[in-house]
Amino acid sequence: MRYANNPILTPRDLAPSQESMKIECLLNPGVFRFDGKTWLLIRVAERPEQREGEISFPLLDDANRITVMRVPSSSPELDLSDPRVISYKGSDYLTTMSHLRLMSSTDGVRFAEEPGYGPIFGSDAYESYGIEDCRVTLLEGTYYLTYTAVSANGVAVRMRSTTDWKRFTDYGLVLPPHNKDCTLFDERIGDLYYMLHRPSSPEIGGNYIWIAESRDLRHWGNHRCVARTRKGMWDSARIGAGCAPIRTGEGWLMIYHGADGDNRYCLGAMLLDAADPSKVLARSDRPIMEPSAPYELTGFFGNVIFTNGHIVEGDRIVMYYGASDEVICRADLSVREILESLK
Amino acid sequence: MRYANNPILTPRDLAPSQESMKIECLLNPGVFRFDGKTWLLIRVAERPEQREGEISFPLLDDANRITVMRVPSSSPELDLSDPRVISYKGSDYLTTMSHLRLMSSTDGVRFAEEPGYGPIFGSDAYESYGIEDCRVTLLEGTYYLTYTAVSANGVAVRMRSTTDWKRFTDYGLVLPPHNKDCTLFDERIGDLYYMLHRPSSPEIGGNYIWIAESRDLRHWGNHRCVARTRKGMWDSARIGAGCAPIRTGEGWLMIYHGADGDNRYCLGAMLLDAADPSKVLARSDRPIMEPSAPYELTGFFGNVIFTNGHIVEGDRIVMYYGASDEVICRADLSVREILESLK
Repeated sequence: MRYANNPILTPRDLAPSQESMKIECLLNPGVFRFDGKTWLLIRVAERPEQREGEISFPLLDDANRITVMRVPSSSPELDLSDPRVISYKGSDYLTTMSHLRLMSSTDGVRFAEEPGYGPIFGSDAYESYGIEDCRVTLLEGTYYLTYTAVSANGVAVRMRSTTDWKRFTDYGLVLPPHNKDCTLFDERIGDLYYMLHRPSSPEIGGNYIWIAESRDLRHWGNHRCVARTRKGMWDSARIGAGCAPIRTGEGWLMIYHGADGDNRYCLGAMLLDAADPSKVLARSDRPIMEPSAPYELTGFFGNVIFTNGHIVEGDRIVMYYGASDEVICRADLSVREILESLK
Repeated sequence: MRYANNPILTPRDLAPSQESMKIECLLNPGVFRFDGKTWLLIRVAERPEQREGEISFPLLDDANRITVMRVPSSSPELDLSDPRVISYKGSDYLTTMSHLRLMSSTDGVRFAEEPGYGPIFGSDAYESYGIEDCRVTLLEGTYYLTYTAVSANGVAVRMRSTTDWKRFTDYGLVLPPHNKDCTLFDERIGDLYYMLHRPSSPEIGGNYIWIAESRDLRHWGNHRCVARTRKGMWDSARIGAGCAPIRTGEGWLMIYHGADGDNRYCLGAMLLDAADPSKVLARSDRPIMEPSAPYELTGFFGNVIFTNGHIVEGDRIVMYYGASDEVICRADLSVREILESLK
């Protein structure tokens, strides 16, 4: 059930990270409980203010500060043929740069920034185009952040951990390009840690959900494909895991996003085997949630709902999600109802 | 210096794995010393005999046996618009399937199969389109095979190990798609094992050489980009490591392949820092070897030389390589001369 006063956060609710930037979108928050409150780790996508006759785009400089590159629109070294990227002097840059912003709430719907917490910016050459779509997993008393690190080297998965949300331990890139939508399971299964991830292939293969295992959370192996896209269905073009799967009596319940060839993003569920989470026991034939509210149908990129964060309270899943790649919303789901829908 | 009687092996020198198949190409051998001899682990690409009015392609059946799919050329579910793959009922298949064949030699130029050794076929659903371009690294007394595993799940890196070339230990996929050109270093550096690998990205990023580290050879992390392609140069489109880098007094000498936009494959070298092999100290401005002999200029796919195997004897590198994706050749190089060329 969608929260009646959705969206709960829009770009106007936050100040940009610096004066020369404008917040274009709030996206896809990681979600966790900390210090008695509900927290969102929101992806904030900013774009430099555009000036007449110039194309400008953001990147990290050598000192890892966000800077704005300004190029005359008439530059012959500029190539704007691909709308997702700005190609300049043979390198590709993103039109926006994302960082992560922490906001907390006592009621789960009114969120505010707290002094001393965040923001979290890209930190080096593997994050020079920004960091995106962070999952947060509380595992054995430590919070693990798995997020998409974007740079000219590619799109890869990086991990950091924290216990106080002020000091972070860096694990480097735990998965090489091209990979995103990575979440850790929130407990070990047997002796091993597990993660779900979503590699992409330029040929043979696709945008499928994979699983990997680890003994130390730093090094990962035994990669196996969990689920593929399904031709002619709502999840025909790409799929990716949400946040940590929910342990139920019937197995691991995983909420995932699926997109079709029209880039319409819906949410579905899979039930993974309790002892071997590489095995899919059941999967949504139809979405458990699809874009229908006005703020989900229209926006920066309409027809998109995307989640990578929730809190579980008994049967209730308090889910936060990005709508139309522009605003943050909340919906409450029922574990039992989702499991029923998988039968 | 090329061996005068190149090529040393051609498709006619081996029998196909079964009657319905024809060997199209011999490619890119892994190379090692074992039992007092030099051994090649050759990639053999086979294609089903084609019949009038049919398109046929190979794949592993559910029992992991190579079978031939035959489809009427007129089938509306057949899509041949991409020459690399056969698309049928929405899935992509390769026109050929590769397996690995072992051959040994006492003089390094006349190779023969030995009863009881090989061939090595794809073994499960991650290898249903074949296995390719195997590097062999002798590390702490065990041979490690790192090769490209191809299936509808994608193109990934799998590892097996052996001490006797008859019994093998499977490590599963050590890297998820899209990845190939993976080689282990042949010793630990500090406490860690290292591998070079080559992920590919469908957007942002490219076909670059990366490095990863491990404590147990099964689980890999701390992925870092070692080298990118270079615009306007011989290695502008894709690069990939050969076999295990050679330890020299000046650092790790790595032979690699580079291709340009015309798919012309040459060989070059990089010198990597002895203590931190993610650092490139020097790199070939011009190739150390480029297609020039007739068998390198013309063949199944002309203008290609590609190596992933050699033996080092003092200053001499006895290198084996695939030429024109069709025949196996030998060339002897000098460590000292390559190092000189990097200055």
